[in-house]
Amino acid sequence: MEVSSLTYEKIIEQKIAELAIDKAPGQLYEPLRYILSIGGKRLRPQLIFIANALFEENIEDCAYAALAVELFHNFTLIHDDIMDNAPLRRGNPTVHEKWNINTGILSGDAMLVVAFAQINKIKSARIREIYDVFNTTAIEVCEGQQFDMNYENQDAVSIDDYLEMIRLKTAVLLAGSLKIGAILGDASDENCKKIYLFGENLGMGFQLMDDYLDVYGDPEKFGKQIGGDIISNKKTYLLLSALDKANTADKAELDQWISAKNPDNKAKVKAITEIYTRSGIDQLSLKKMNDYYNKAYALLEEIHVPEHKKSQLKDFADLLSKRIQ
Amino acid sequence: MEVSSLTYEKIIEQKIAELAIDKAPGQLYEPLRYILSIGGKRLRPQLIFIANALFEENIEDCAYAALAVELFHNFTLIHDDIMDNAPLRRGNPTVHEKWNINTGILSGDAMLVVAFAQINKIKSARIREIYDVFNTTAIEVCEGQQFDMNYENQDAVSIDDYLEMIRLKTAVLLAGSLKIGAILGDASDENCKKIYLFGENLGMGFQLMDDYLDVYGDPEKFGKQIGGDIISNKKTYLLLSALDKANTADKAELDQWISAKNPDNKAKVKAITEIYTRSGIDQLSLKKMNDYYNKAYALLEEIHVPEHKKSQLKDFADLLSKRIQ
Repeated sequence: MEVSSLTYEKIIEQKIAELAIDKAPGQLYEPLRYILSIGGKRLRPQLIFIANALFEENIEDCAYAALAVELFHNFTLIHDDIMDNAPLRRGNPTVHEKWNINTGILSGDAMLVVAFAQINKIKSARIREIYDVFNTTAIEVCEGQQFDMNYENQDAVSIDDYLEMIRLKTAVLLAGSLKIGAILGDASDENCKKIYLFGENLGMGFQLMDDYLDVYGDPEKFGKQIGGDIISNKKTYLLLSALDKANTADKAELDQWISAKNPDNKAKVKAITEIYTRSGIDQLSLKKMNDYYNKAYALLEEIHVPEHKKSQLKDFADLLSKRIQ
Repeated sequence: MEVSSLTYEKIIEQKIAELAIDKAPGQLYEPLRYILSIGGKRLRPQLIFIANALFEENIEDCAYAALAVELFHNFTLIHDDIMDNAPLRRGNPTVHEKWNINTGILSGDAMLVVAFAQINKIKSARIREIYDVFNTTAIEVCEGQQFDMNYENQDAVSIDDYLEMIRLKTAVLLAGSLKIGAILGDASDENCKKIYLFGENLGMGFQLMDDYLDVYGDPEKFGKQIGGDIISNKKTYLLLSALDKANTADKAELDQWISAKNPDNKAKVKAITEIYTRSGIDQLSLKKMNDYYNKAYALLEEIHVPEHKKSQLKDFADLLSKRIQ
């Protein structure tokens, strides 16, 4: 049975709809329904099915794993939004904004436990491996969030520090989702390892593209405010590279904008974007991103399954990597 | 091999010491070490060993389960302390007070994941049952905390509502710990069910005693401020029973103290304690508590193992239930 990614999306939405979270206390469960209802691309759960399709198909187990990963991802969004003091998520009020911080904390906790409860419904004999991937990924995502918060108040952040942070905060969950799909397809250890590394590189490229699009994206398509990272002085790959590579005058101007109290944000975005461009940071970002994507594609080649089986995963990777091209 | 409860405590402390949580980012892991280092009676992990000793001894698996349960319990303390805005825990600054709220949220999250990671080290073939107990218990504890928060701002709380809340918030974790120990001893489903119910009743009695001691306890022995629940208008079994059973004059006085802005706390504690006493609420509480303890002891009788094996669990129950007698 060949199942298109559209069908995967339907399975995921059905699993979310089936979640028995309409019980008391409503104050605990309503935020779960809410955060799941305001959208999201369901990238991570889809990756489970797509990776699984390379090997022995196991839709039923994948559906539980997919739900677990989507619940986990949304748990991190609820708690991260509290920590980042974010008022909006996907254009809607964040959970702590719509309710309050306590509701955000406790509903997030419940969501994480509900995620774990889905894993236990998986019938595969390799259940312990699934738990291992899930646990390791979950703790790494926490570590990534901690580094991200640390770097906000830390003067010297190296580019390597930053790359390790986005690996933990973003890439490992894509990689882990793919690996879980592969394990559920009874893939060899070698193939599981390869698909994990593929996902890690894909995730790195994905985050670097997000950083790039935050500055150079089309406001219509990007869905977020262009220049948001610049306004908030977020230490992205672009800013850290500019601080490293710009000439003395540009670096001084950059430092001035960063330390300015109440700057004109529109002027700040324009000026820093110009510094990035004339310092070649846009091209450097694209190159770094493409390095990761190329490494991902090379790893995909090394996975030992018939080539025709890889088309869906390639299409998915193309979709992610071609967002700007 | 007969192992005394002192040895269990040593195993638990050793497992805590072995936890590899001295890695980066320190900001994430230091609060875990801190909350585990400021004490606690380790009741829940001990219950795992003690329940297990009724059946086939499995110290190694119990040690992981015990660590998981202690980590889970401490995770709830970190997050509950944020939600309750509590400055002190076991006489020391709470995590969010010592660091900040974000650190409390994220370290708590990490602690919950680390708890789950311990479960996966259990070798027993009945691992899925362990996860089921752990997941169910964890979600119920979240529900209990939510009900507890709801009741703070809710005018009409029935005694049944309150009992269900403390069942979820406190009793199920004692019950779940016992059941996990029994499963790891390969106990029959019937025995697992009985020991769970034993723990639930023990837990109910334990919490009702806490409520009682908060008013009538010996300040030297209780370890917390006497009258704390009265000062904060906490809807305990005593207050709810008094609102239900006191005569019209006493009820009016009670209402007055509850709604008073900035009352003299010492006078408030004295007056409400007197109302409790002359309405017979102290005796009613002790009776309710003893009902639960008696039910627990009766359930212990029904567990099908040689009687001499039950002495350790009985001693433990005696220790909990005799705190005031």
